[in-house]
Amino acid sequence: MEGSIPYDSTRSPNTDETSPKIVTFSLPNGDLKVEKELPQSPKQNFPRRFLSGFTFKRTKSPRKNTAASATQFPDHKILQSLTISTLSLCSMDASIDAEPYKWPHDGTFDPATTALVIIDMQRDFCSANGYLAQQGYDLALVQSIILPLQGLLAAFRSHGFPVYHTREGHRPDLSTLSSRELLRSRNNPSGLGIGDSGPLGRLLVRGEAGHDIIPELYPIDGENIIDKPGRSAFQHTDFKLILNIKGIKNLILCGATTDVCVHSTMREANDNGFDCLIVEDCTAAAEKQLHDFAIESVKSEGGIFGAVTTAEKVLTALGIRSVPSRYQSGHAR
Amino acid sequence: MEGSIPYDSTRSPNTDETSPKIVTFSLPNGDLKVEKELPQSPKQNFPRRFLSGFTFKRTKSPRKNTAASATQFPDHKILQSLTISTLSLCSMDASIDAEPYKWPHDGTFDPATTALVIIDMQRDFCSANGYLAQQGYDLALVQSIILPLQGLLAAFRSHGFPVYHTREGHRPDLSTLSSRELLRSRNNPSGLGIGDSGPLGRLLVRGEAGHDIIPELYPIDGENIIDKPGRSAFQHTDFKLILNIKGIKNLILCGATTDVCVHSTMREANDNGFDCLIVEDCTAAAEKQLHDFAIESVKSEGGIFGAVTTAEKVLTALGIRSVPSRYQSGHAR
Amino acid sequence: MEGSIPYDSTRSPNTDETSPKIVTFSLPNGDLKVEKELPQSPKQNFPRRFLSGFTFKRTKSPRKNTAASATQFPDHKILQSLTISTLSLCSMDASIDAEPYKWPHDGTFDPATTALVIIDMQRDFCSANGYLAQQGYDLALVQSIILPLQGLLAAFRSHGFPVYHTREGHRPDLSTLSSRELLRSRNNPSGLGIGDSGPLGRLLVRGEAGHDIIPELYPIDGENIIDKPGRSAFQHTDFKLILNIKGIKNLILCGATTDVCVHSTMREANDNGFDCLIVEDCTAAAEKQLHDFAIESVKSEGGIFGAVTTAEKVLTALGIRSVPSRYQSGHAR
Amino acid sequence: MEGSIPYDSTRSPNTDETSPKIVTFSLPNGDLKVEKELPQSPKQNFPRRFLSGFTFKRTKSPRKNTAASATQFPDHKILQSLTISTLSLCSMDASIDAEPYKWPHDGTFDPATTALVIIDMQRDFCSANGYLAQQGYDLALVQSIILPLQGLLAAFRSHGFPVYHTREGHRPDLSTLSSRELLRSRNNPSGLGIGDSGPLGRLLVRGEAGHDIIPELYPIDGENIIDKPGRSAFQHTDFKLILNIKGIKNLILCGATTDVCVHSTMREANDNGFDCLIVEDCTAAAEKQLHDFAIESVKSEGGIFGAVTTAEKVLTALGIRSVPSRYQSGHAR
Repeated sequence: MEGSIPYDSTRSPNTDETSPKIVTFSLPNGDLKVEKELPQSPKQNFPRRFLSGFTFKRTKSPRKNTAASATQFPDHKILQSLTISTLSLCSMDASIDAEPYKWPHDGTFDPATTALVIIDMQRDFCSANGYLAQQGYDLALVQSIILPLQGLLAAFRSHGFPVYHTREGHRPDLSTLSSRELLRSRNNPSGLGIGDSGPLGRLLVRGEAGHDIIPELYPIDGENIIDKPGRSAFQHTDFKLILNIKGIKNLILCGATTDVCVHSTMREANDNGFDCLIVEDCTAAAEKQLHDFAIESVKSEGGIFGAVTTAEKVLTALGIRSVPSRYQSGHAR
Repeated sequence: MEGSIPYDSTRSPNTDETSPKIVTFSLPNGDLKVEKELPQSPKQNFPRRFLSGFTFKRTKSPRKNTAASATQFPDHKILQSLTISTLSLCSMDASIDAEPYKWPHDGTFDPATTALVIIDMQRDFCSANGYLAQQGYDLALVQSIILPLQGLLAAFRSHGFPVYHTREGHRPDLSTLSSRELLRSRNNPSGLGIGDSGPLGRLLVRGEAGHDIIPELYPIDGENIIDKPGRSAFQHTDFKLILNIKGIKNLILCGATTDVCVHSTMREANDNGFDCLIVEDCTAAAEKQLHDFAIESVKSEGGIFGAVTTAEKVLTALGIRSVPSRYQSGHAR
Repeated sequence: MEGSIPYDSTRSPNTDETSPKIVTFSLPNGDLKVEKELPQSPKQNFPRRFLSGFTFKRTKSPRKNTAASATQFPDHKILQSLTISTLSLCSMDASIDAEPYKWPHDGTFDPATTALVIIDMQRDFCSANGYLAQQGYDLALVQSIILPLQGLLAAFRSHGFPVYHTREGHRPDLSTLSSRELLRSRNNPSGLGIGDSGPLGRLLVRGEAGHDIIPELYPIDGENIIDKPGRSAFQHTDFKLILNIKGIKNLILCGATTDVCVHSTMREANDNGFDCLIVEDCTAAAEKQLHDFAIESVKSEGGIFGAVTTAEKVLTALGIRSVPSRYQSGHAR
Repeated sequence: MEGSIPYDSTRSPNTDETSPKIVTFSLPNGDLKVEKELPQSPKQNFPRRFLSGFTFKRTKSPRKNTAASATQFPDHKILQSLTISTLSLCSMDASIDAEPYKWPHDGTFDPATTALVIIDMQRDFCSANGYLAQQGYDLALVQSIILPLQGLLAAFRSHGFPVYHTREGHRPDLSTLSSRELLRSRNNPSGLGIGDSGPLGRLLVRGEAGHDIIPELYPIDGENIIDKPGRSAFQHTDFKLILNIKGIKNLILCGATTDVCVHSTMREANDNGFDCLIVEDCTAAAEKQLHDFAIESVKSEGGIFGAVTTAEKVLTALGIRSVPSRYQSGHAR
């Protein structure tokens, strides 16, 4: 699997979380529509066969300066939300089938209130030479969620939902790294930890190739990247401010790893009144049982941290007829 | 077990987290020393036989106004820390045997830098008629840690370590309770959730009998209670301020439940540079496997959230000869 | 003026910020309606003549458990907000005349989105023997805002707006007090600082008589008190959580002192996306010029921290015919 | 004055706050020592005559990976701090003469505990075509502190103190900008606000020329830049984490503007236990009186937000013989 994500060493590394690179966008008919051409844009390999089951309708054009300022005003916001409703309400449900409660609890599953949050799908957690591999873990579990996550991401993009991507990493001078974190990250057979050099650059350091998001899930224009030094995407970042300004109150969480960064983010979101949904087949941990019990823990006490669902149930709520057989085989290829 | 913790209905409920009631303090020789008499003080039933294995030395007198202000000044602080060292360094180690690293990572296990944090050992989580029981869970696991926690607490008190107790609960008007949290807490067979009335008062509401800490582990003078509306003791509280002012950087975590409030607190502490140790036989979850994997998760990636140890190893580091046989049988009584 | 606020030494001090005492409520026709009788309730002396210009209509009954949980559900919330609208929209404006912009910026002046926040109107800042007097300041300025604030508070209560009261103070063990804060608070001719004993109890310590809110502005049932150890009401408290849960996004700020706690709270609110309005004749500082320039600073750069208005303009927006002559003379009496 | 800071339009704008560009460093003897050559490095014009009164001794070499990780370990830290002491204790005082108390309150003026924080000395606040000029303010006051600030910065660098620079600005997609902030920033005669295009690029937007720090005070290697969307440098940033990890507890604050961003940062620092010193002739506001009363407010109540001093008193404490006459004339040139 990893073999299909070659790292292009000539590509300049990501340097700024505030200006995510624009990537080409593959339409279902096979044509390639270039939203905005940038030299460093990786080519996106969408799972086209899987996506052929539905039609893409981008109800939200790529964010421009004027569009951005327009969203600041209530009238425009309502208009935008109405436009989205017109296009998608025919098929979208107000909630998603989930355990242990139908999510969100108040039936407000809508692009105006709900965001998709993809946690730490960076080379350092997905690629053979990155941080997690250096820690001695098998990457098969994390890699297995890339394809279903691509489907989910395309679906949310097509319906105009806000999408946020997080990256774990430190300032190059390691001023955000505690002595404990350095020690524990080196506490493995390789002896390599955060800030040490690996084939993809210094491990979990901002600006390095390994720190960047994998090409398959690369952010497009209008999708914010949250660079975080710790586990929770809310700690020491502007994430909560951004969500508050946009009026988001429901978070759909995916990514890696389930019991670590996904859980920490979900917990802090929940402690701050957000209603969270974790997609169990779009999250993965370093070990299967850690994933399973992290999921189980969410469901305890009536949904102590939120609710749990699957990618298929999310797609169903979005009015997308999923094609499970291709879905599965697509990944097995 | 629960039968031995009768709830005294005539006792006035706790009303203020800022002035924990003083309880009587049972010395190992069996004499009862009343630190400060208050009508509502529950009688503390210490596991005397277990504690007879070591001598109590309170190196820190009950906090007074003058003592409190004295700790504000560096010179006095050093003096206090020296006094403690003189009394305890003969037997105390600078670190505790733990997995996956000797804790704390920098060998600063000392009352000046290290605190014991007991999470949510309230009637609502430990008593037959409290919140957790209403959620339909067996309380045996949580109750089984009371005795070892008493031993640990007595040991830390005797060595002059700061001790913090947390309580989960809401303002009586439920202004701290989100609609989601209300719904999920009622999502159980009883249909009762936060704020609803149970035999110990309104569930998880401040000032109610069920909200208070169990008598066996009741705070004594000088021990702060952190009242928190969510899972993490750092969210919406003054906990971090208090720890910063006191110079604490290492936290030893115990209490309930392992995968929920203990973990959330540990995660946020870790994201803020604290070095955390979880005592696996002094923490418990609603289900055994949730506990086991919460512990396992801490150890992954070289100690991603901190380190794991046992009560015996902590006592050993404190220079206390533990008596495991009585320890076990004491609880079986 | 101060003479009219005698401190009743037999009254038990406030012990818990989570359960504000219920006070008697003086209706404009002169009858006394006791909402809930409590021995420690101070008698509220409303400026009746001033208030005789309008009719009290409490559109919101005292919060009960069921009422509290009802507000958790959107449908009920809308219903409640509609009820309020029916009663008050005939006279209320959607915004308040202010400088340097009409406030709030998006015309959402409404009990569902807007709250009145009264900062630190405690005896320690208003009474002759409290903290601020010990610092050597004249209390005339702070005392002069009590009467207009009473009018404003009554008006907001009558229109069903949420009201929040803050208190500055520390845990009795001073664990929330930094060594610097202790030193600077003693840096005055009296040599007395936070935690030291004065005629109204230990200065700025929770549970002491001096720490409590003055009777003239005492919270009624349903009004939260935010106990804060610092200047900003958002630091180390649950204030932001409470506001987020209730959906508040506009804050009207009053109280003492303008350049210190009012400003710190306004600044942090503003940094978190709240739209803030400061009522210049319902705020006061230790010195007139400090007040004036704190107000001036708000207006710079187009309203860098929010907008500035007067009590009369707020009352006008609420549809209340103010009686300025009596207003002024009322205070001069 | 502004004429001496020409904006080089060919220079590529700053793109990442995590990798401040290295600038050339002018030694007092007039030689130019290039620390690390980068094409975009602006040439630093140090006020050499003023600095000729003392010798530069960089006790801290430019941070390298290995050096960075070394600072994580206590032993190395102590060693580093001892080295610094050896070189500088001959002349340095443990505290600075200030009002209304000698600062810091505990006499710990030392590179291990104390940092210089320079607030928002960006083109947008200092240059003729930037944000503040568009707001209609005269820039003379802000520009007048550049030269004394250069002297202070050089002195702290020579003594090995940590230095932090902040920048106010938003993500290019304005996702961090509230609708209120947009409106108030446009509330001026020009009608231009945050995100709108000016001669130095979009106003207060990250990555634009106007957003970057002025060449005279440009960060060198090892100095962190804190990019903040609001007034306080602690809101929505990693600043507190970085300070905590480094063990900083005393902050010396300079920059612009006194009553806005400097004050908000000082207030939040103070609410979190930091001891703050504001250098009154190295801070400036849009108007003189706003500056004066912001300074006055700090001193009230025994130093409610910290202490106030002058550049000369700081230099004296650092053991540097200042040359006031040249200081003044240097600026008048």
